[in-house]
This record gives sequence, C-alpha cells and structure tokens, in this order.
Amino acid sequence: MIGIFDSGLGGLTALCELAALLPHEDMIYFGDTGRVPYGSKSEATIVRYSVQDMNFLCGFGIDAALVACGTASSTALPTLREKFDIPVFGVIEAAAREAAATTRSGRVGVLGTSTTVRNGAFERAVKDADMSVEVTSVACPLFVHLVENGFIERGDAVTLAAAERYLAPLRGSGIDTLILGCTHYPIISWAIEAVLPGVRLISSGEAAAKMLASELGHGGGDGKQGKIRFFVSDTPDDFEAAARVFMGSFPIGHAEYVDISKY
Amino acid sequence: MIGIFDSGLGGLTALCELAALLPHEDMIYFGDTGRVPYGSKSEATIVRYSVQDMNFLCGFGIDAALVACGTASSTALPTLREKFDIPVFGVIEAAAREAAATTRSGRVGVLGTSTTVRNGAFERAVKDADMSVEVTSVACPLFVHLVENGFIERGDAVTLAAAERYLAPLRGSGIDTLILGCTHYPIISWAIEAVLPGVRLISSGEAAAKMLASELGHGGGDGKQGKIRFFVSDTPDDFEAAARVFMGSFPIGHAEYVDISKY
Repeated sequence: MIGIFDSGLGGLTALCELAALLPHEDMIYFGDTGRVPYGSKSEATIVRYSVQDMNFLCGFGIDAALVACGTASSTALPTLREKFDIPVFGVIEAAAREAAATTRSGRVGVLGTSTTVRNGAFERAVKDADMSVEVTSVACPLFVHLVENGFIERGDAVTLAAAERYLAPLRGSGIDTLILGCTHYPIISWAIEAVLPGVRLISSGEAAAKMLASELGHGGGDGKQGKIRFFVSDTPDDFEAAARVFMGSFPIGHAEYVDISKY
Repeated sequence: MIGIFDSGLGGLTALCELAALLPHEDMIYFGDTGRVPYGSKSEATIVRYSVQDMNFLCGFGIDAALVACGTASSTALPTLREKFDIPVFGVIEAAAREAAATTRSGRVGVLGTSTTVRNGAFERAVKDADMSVEVTSVACPLFVHLVENGFIERGDAVTLAAAERYLAPLRGSGIDTLILGCTHYPIISWAIEAVLPGVRLISSGEAAAKMLASELGHGGGDGKQGKIRFFVSDTPDDFEAAARVFMGSFPIGHAEYVDISKY
C-alpha cells in the first residue's frame, strides 16, 4: 500500500499516473485542504504539517510514501526520511534527473511556489544530476490559486497575463527544458507553452510517479484492482467536483474527513 | 482591550482604522497565517478555526472582539456570540447598514469570498436594514490571492483582467453602492473602480471599526497610547513586510508565533 499526500488536490495528478502504472496497488491519498496552500507558508510550518500528514498515512501501514507536493518535497523530505522507517519519495529528484537528461542547451528552468524556489531544492537536484547544467528558477505563487479557482480554460486571459508576467525572465534565457515544480501546474501547461513555445515541460508529479513505480513495481500483482481511499482535512462535500479538475476521467470515490491537527 | 482576528493579514486594514478611532485602547491582533485562506474552505472548518481564534484572544482577557474577516463573520458569528460572553462584532452589519443608507438606486452589490457569497449573510443584513434594496452578490475568490501575492500596483494587468471577469455581472445592473465584503479588497479598490466607475465602495472592515468604536468608545481614555500586540500562526519572520501592504505608514511591531491548533 502506498500513501500519497499533498497540501491540497494537485497531488491527484501524481496519483492518477501512479494508479495507471501500478493498477494492483492499494493507495491512500491525503489532501490537506483544511490548511492549503503550503507554498506561501514558512519552512517550519510546512515541516510540521508534513510530519502530521505522514503520521496519518502511516497509521494505515503503508509500505512507501509519495510526497506529491513540490513545496513539501523541497522542504520536509530530509525530516520525513529521518523520522519514518519506510521509503519516502518526493517529486524533485526524478524531475531533476529527467530535465538534466533532456536538455540540449544545458539550460533548465524551474517553476515553483515561493518556498520551493527560495530553498533551491530543485536547483541542487539538477546540479546533482549534471553539474554543467545552468538552472533558472522562478516563483509563480499565483498559479496554484488560478488552478484552484478555475482559471484553467485554454486561453483564459487572467492566467495568460499571469504567465506572461512570471515567465518573462525565462524568455530568451536559452532554456529548452522546464520543470513544473508544483503538482498544480500541469493543469495550466497550455499557458506556459503559449509564453515559452518549444520548451519541453516536465511534470514533477508524473516523473516521481514513474520513478516510484519502477522502484516498487512488482509486475502487476495477482490481477486484482487496487483500492484507493481519499482523505481531506476540510469538509469533503465538494471533493468529487474539485478533484475532477485534476483527475480527468479517472474514477473518483468520495473522500473522508480527518482532523489532521490531532496527528 | 479589544481582540481582533482574521484568516490572515487583511484584517489589519480594520485594525488601523480602529487604532485611529480609539488610540488609547490596547489591542491584540491574531492572523491565522498558518491556515489562510478561510474563504475557500467549508463552513464547518471555518467555524472550528474561528472558535480556536477566539479562544486564543480570550486568554488575554479582552473586553470585546472584532471578527475582521468577511468569511468568518458571515459563517461563525452566531456560534461565537453564543460561546463567548463578550461583545463580538463582525464586518457585515455595519457595512450593510451603510450600504442601505447610501444607495439612491436601491441596488447594492456585494463582493466576497465563495463561502461568504454562498451563505448570503451580507444579502440578509442589507435586507434587514432596508427590505426594499435589491442585492447582487458576486464571489471573487482570486482577489485575496492577488493581494497576498503582490498584484496590487494600480493598473496591474492580471488584477484588472480578474476584476473585469468577476465584475461583469454587475455592469449595467444599476448598482450604485458596492460592499467590499472581504478585508483584503480595499487594497485593490482601484481595479474595482476602473471596472465600475462612479460606484460608491464601502469597506466592510472600516465600517465595522467605526461601529465598534462608537459603541465602545469612552472619549480618549487618560491620554495614554494603547499597546498593540500581533500574533500569527505561521512563522512570523516576514510579518512586518507582509503587514506593510495593509497598514501603510502605521507603525508595525514584530509578531509572535502561536500554535493555534492547541486552542
């Protein structure tokens, strides 16, 4: 059984990828919708929240965890790996390796929340994969909110204007590969592509799901279909509609409420 | 001593107004920056958080409280008034009365978060003040994030595009008065005015501060200057810079951290 958590629902993009790769695996998803977003909060607060999220998931006896949140991955991963005795995957390493292997120009961009960009975790991971690659990181704190508030239709003028503002420093920078360092961003990849045409986008959630599947995959199990349970820290009334944005045609069950402050 | 809380820092606009009207009064401000925003969360969660916020403030022996958050006021006020034995002011009543008294066309608009608009608290309060007034409410969930992420300069293209989208239903609706039902919105009133020129804007935080001051004011005290203490639930490192957006030239001290989930 794999546990997956995110500050909210963006991590569902990684869950879908993982469920496609490991269809026999049981999974528990926790979205901290009662305290979302993490990306504008301090590192100490993000670490505290992430430990609670893991405590909750570990109560189910999970064998491995995916921190499907760029902010939590960039901030809390060392603490989580120290505190918990199971493999803990983040969304940074796989995307960084894929970006370093993909770039031809030797220049990679990273988009993330304020906290993710400030702590430089993606930048370090790309350098770890290939010291010669130059990395330019840009914080795009409004993107999460544009996605969560439905500014996601292709061509949306508000989202395009925000993308133009945020991505201006990357124009003409010579990057040919761009890491989407937050699991919300794939939903508005059309806006990023409009501003930076021809640049290869790497979804950090998707890359992490592939890496986790290849490390844990045991060849399809016994043919049974894995069960997926969803938990959230806000009232789950609108869960299915909200999750649809991230999960497309994937079947979505209801979600259960958990008071995460007790963990 | 007056206690003031908000989901984040928007309530500081009301605090400044109150401090100007009651300069001798001691005040405690709590901003729930570790769980901001409230406006997109469920009513049950908002009530739970608001009760914790009040529990914290009441530990200081406050004589009255101002819920300087449109979302919390529209959702939690009845519960807070029942649970706590001091006067609890929200930001709805004063703004609603002022709007009903101001309108000449008999048509008033309300801007608020999703939760505030869904529960219709401002609408009911305007009707309570004057049954004949027609009210049109519009949810503007992105506005809080535009303010918190610095899209506040007069003429900002992203904020203008968002204002045009949200306010379209109010164009040609005949409203001449518009309640800013969230204490963040006065910071981008220029964008609202650009889309709806000539409409009179009423700041709910300012209106509430005036009402509270006139009900509690005792003529200037003994000339001493009141003390203001600030508490937040996220790490307070960047408090002063973040608060400056809302407080202008008002003197800002440092903020202290509180683990609000314990209350």
